[in-house]
Amino acid sequence: MADAGPLIIIGGHEDKEGERVILKAVAERVQGRKLVIATVASHEPEGYFESYRKGFEGLGVGELVELYVEERSESQSEAALAILENAGGIFFSGGDQLRISSQIGDTPVERRIREMHASGAVIAGTSAGASVMSETMLVKGASSESYRIGELHMAPGLGLVRDVIIDQHFAERGRYGRLLGAVAHNPRLLGIGIDENTAVVVEGRRLRVLGSGAAYVVDGETATHSNIAEARSDRALSMFDVRMHVLSSGDRFDLDARRPSPGQDDHGARPPKTGS
Amino acid sequence: MADAGPLIIIGGHEDKEGERVILKAVAERVQGRKLVIATVASHEPEGYFESYRKGFEGLGVGELVELYVEERSESQSEAALAILENAGGIFFSGGDQLRISSQIGDTPVERRIREMHASGAVIAGTSAGASVMSETMLVKGASSESYRIGELHMAPGLGLVRDVIIDQHFAERGRYGRLLGAVAHNPRLLGIGIDENTAVVVEGRRLRVLGSGAAYVVDGETATHSNIAEARSDRALSMFDVRMHVLSSGDRFDLDARRPSPGQDDHGARPPKTGS
Repeated sequence: MADAGPLIIIGGHEDKEGERVILKAVAERVQGRKLVIATVASHEPEGYFESYRKGFEGLGVGELVELYVEERSESQSEAALAILENAGGIFFSGGDQLRISSQIGDTPVERRIREMHASGAVIAGTSAGASVMSETMLVKGASSESYRIGELHMAPGLGLVRDVIIDQHFAERGRYGRLLGAVAHNPRLLGIGIDENTAVVVEGRRLRVLGSGAAYVVDGETATHSNIAEARSDRALSMFDVRMHVLSSGDRFDLDARRPSPGQDDHGARPPKTGS
Repeated sequence: MADAGPLIIIGGHEDKEGERVILKAVAERVQGRKLVIATVASHEPEGYFESYRKGFEGLGVGELVELYVEERSESQSEAALAILENAGGIFFSGGDQLRISSQIGDTPVERRIREMHASGAVIAGTSAGASVMSETMLVKGASSESYRIGELHMAPGLGLVRDVIIDQHFAERGRYGRLLGAVAHNPRLLGIGIDENTAVVVEGRRLRVLGSGAAYVVDGETATHSNIAEARSDRALSMFDVRMHVLSSGDRFDLDARRPSPGQDDHGARPPKTGS
């Protein structure tokens, strides 16, 4: 049996016009095969596919095709499965993570995506497409404020990566409060917050950071106190002795050992020239 | 010799119309004596004094007077010293922390403030008035993004609290990136990030949190790696094994032992009703 393919989990707004470090990393792993741009997360997918068509131009991917489902029934159709046929990778664009999980969860399309991943295909996702990769995914919660008890919505995700919960647009939208809140619920899940134009590439149980920003790992194992189960609703969270790692381009992290290691490579560490 | 007075360090936008938990805490400690509202941080102080006059109404403080200096020379005048006479407290309003340090640093006014604090007067400060309390203060740095090497301005503050560096509007402006960056420079300084309408009350070397948000303590002592001295300018920060505490209303922290303890009291834990 082949090894599972890599996951490329992107914090949103990946550069599509400048150095394109993240799109290049996707393209390299697709190795000239077909790449499916899944725009399922969006309520209005117009323009998404086109922007990725331009973004991947000249990077050596094979055929580029769009997968969109308006209704859940389409995820049960032969037409949708035909789009996935012989693809070397799938790229989930942004929008609403709940659209992905509710429209394709437990359908033939989702099963096929799992099979493809298990046999080596690349699965990439940005923004909503990043969140949906975890087992339990963050759906909604306040940005730019500290976590308040009860103020967070989670739901089952695609579960392509175990024991982590992912947040995106991380520093840009001030989301450490809500990621800490998510981790406080059950520190079994490692919190991973990914900045814009930044990705974590998961191969096996190891990840490596790529792009211009940082990825934050929030490890609640060491936490000695939290008020999440006792405090009344709307009260601010208390949580003591959380371990945090700030990882930047080239840094690695072992998800099982929960240990970081510094990278030598700072490829792609500059912010993109474009406004993205 | 009397004990030093309390410091009330506020993350900005303290409630002035609703429960006024933080202003009440200031008033209680002023104990009916004169309170000086120092609007020095502002380039345009109009309106600040009036809003505090209303905010402190009915809370039992004595005379309320304004201290403003347009020019540094005024901080060397007898008139400015007369304003401080017999005051039980000083409240630094928001604006630019560099105005406070440059206009009153190393003047008779600053010396008098230190003497007053040493003999028991309350020193409160919000926003810029909070930042200026530390030995080395944060002056400028990007909000809502991860820290990039070189992207932070620090300057000497009033040094009323040793071995900490303070940031304000913390969750609201997404400033954990820059506070982590500040701590990375020298983990001797404990980073304290304070949310809006939230205060830390420092008495002796112990602090207690008050208000509707959280205070974040970033302790770099345990950090095992950082790239701050090696990486080229503009590269994102890496820092491993940082210890973080999220403290909410009632929680305490011992600045010397660097240890938190949970509070029972959740007085003031609700967000203010006003938009502040």
